[in-house]
Amino acid sequence: MKEKVTIVKVGGAVVEDEARLARLLAGFSRLPGRKILVHGGGRSATAMAAKLGIETRMVNGRRITDEAMLQVVTMVYGGLVNKRVVARLQAEGINALGLTGADMNVMRSHRRPVKDGIDYGHVGDVEEADAQALHTLIKAGITPVMAPLTHDGKGNLLNTNADTIAAETAKALAQRYDVTLIYGFEKPGVMANPDDPQTLIPLITPDGFRQLVDNGTISGGMIPKVENALEAVSCGVCQVVITSVETIDGQHGTMVRAR
Amino acid sequence: MKEKVTIVKVGGAVVEDEARLARLLAGFSRLPGRKILVHGGGRSATAMAAKLGIETRMVNGRRITDEAMLQVVTMVYGGLVNKRVVARLQAEGINALGLTGADMNVMRSHRRPVKDGIDYGHVGDVEEADAQALHTLIKAGITPVMAPLTHDGKGNLLNTNADTIAAETAKALAQRYDVTLIYGFEKPGVMANPDDPQTLIPLITPDGFRQLVDNGTISGGMIPKVENALEAVSCGVCQVVITSVETIDGQHGTMVRAR
Repeated sequence: MKEKVTIVKVGGAVVEDEARLARLLAGFSRLPGRKILVHGGGRSATAMAAKLGIETRMVNGRRITDEAMLQVVTMVYGGLVNKRVVARLQAEGINALGLTGADMNVMRSHRRPVKDGIDYGHVGDVEEADAQALHTLIKAGITPVMAPLTHDGKGNLLNTNADTIAAETAKALAQRYDVTLIYGFEKPGVMANPDDPQTLIPLITPDGFRQLVDNGTISGGMIPKVENALEAVSCGVCQVVITSVETIDGQHGTMVRAR
Repeated sequence: MKEKVTIVKVGGAVVEDEARLARLLAGFSRLPGRKILVHGGGRSATAMAAKLGIETRMVNGRRITDEAMLQVVTMVYGGLVNKRVVARLQAEGINALGLTGADMNVMRSHRRPVKDGIDYGHVGDVEEADAQALHTLIKAGITPVMAPLTHDGKGNLLNTNADTIAAETAKALAQRYDVTLIYGFEKPGVMANPDDPQTLIPLITPDGFRQLVDNGTISGGMIPKVENALEAVSCGVCQVVITSVETIDGQHGTMVRAR
């Protein structure tokens, strides 16, 4: 039987709010066994860019990353957010290690090609996560804390979506571990009525998903989130849990499974 | 016989200038055996602080680090400078891993007490470097790249002088390794006349140092630099080399040895 690994992805809104960060870290610390934390930091990056007089431009929910913005996200994701989380986890007794994709070459990417006239700039599409490097770390009792930055192996850092980092990490580790991927966000899970926790959908499978989209139960921004989750479970990840950052124990929220 | 480790410390001026950084990284990549890079970043931090409207205040050459400045140095040292160097080293075929003292708890410190009315703020005096953690990494073929930040184990990051980080790392590893510590800066070494490379002092020992200070050959900012080097060699570090970043091969510059 494979050993278990839990990968928790949390968005910027969580790590940027002191009270929510404290609750997240307490919950994360309580998770048993091997674990990895993946964080975003978009709001902090946008705020820091504004302070520096750099305009944030988003296309399809993704940040256009020119040279100046790459500096901002490198500072904010790799430094400000990542190191603060690492120091806090150390205080919780977790032997955390902050990583970008360049560190130990854990995640290689290539610059996203210009398509339909949209140049995202220094944005990376992941080629592969190095499962061996991550395995070496977690086997040594280390908890990787991954920032949403990758590199191209030619000396260039690239801005990369944190959901993607989490999914690629989960898929790479699935060959060796029994992986649970938890997406922590502001809602208790996927809900038929986003304002009513009573309408939480406890389980989504590929067949169920199609029905839920067809009948309008799942719509909008939740569709790509669930699609990502379904792709991960189709690549060997045991289960994906979409839940509130307050309940990342794997027992709450919406489970996404292959069947 | 102990295995050799070379620790190279370079200041901010080097890592911030593209041409000098390229030469440094090429030289560092050529160093044989296990190695560690320690970098500063003060000029970048000062420049970034200025852009953010934060005033830089220095006392005795050290940065007063209030809450706003701690954010700046966390971003700049831990993110901007560190991750750029890591990505560049990966491109040179070096399996680099960026670290602050919080990462893997490699360097614990406590906040410097207020003394003589001077409160340096969030500045850390090092308690200990974790030789075991560093040993685990370098044994695995990883090259640590250390930013001048430490932590107090209670969740707080602290700004810490890069020369100190390098010296503490060297001393901690000296029990297990044959350590050479190289301080790379803008001059070829310690010179009787700072403007004349012909006056380079090839070797300094504790006895020789006292004479050189007494007769005025070594003065000013070079005194604490050599004192730090002498303290390291008195704590088991084989040799300290003070040299230009262009010649970090251990064959040039001023050697500081216990005898």
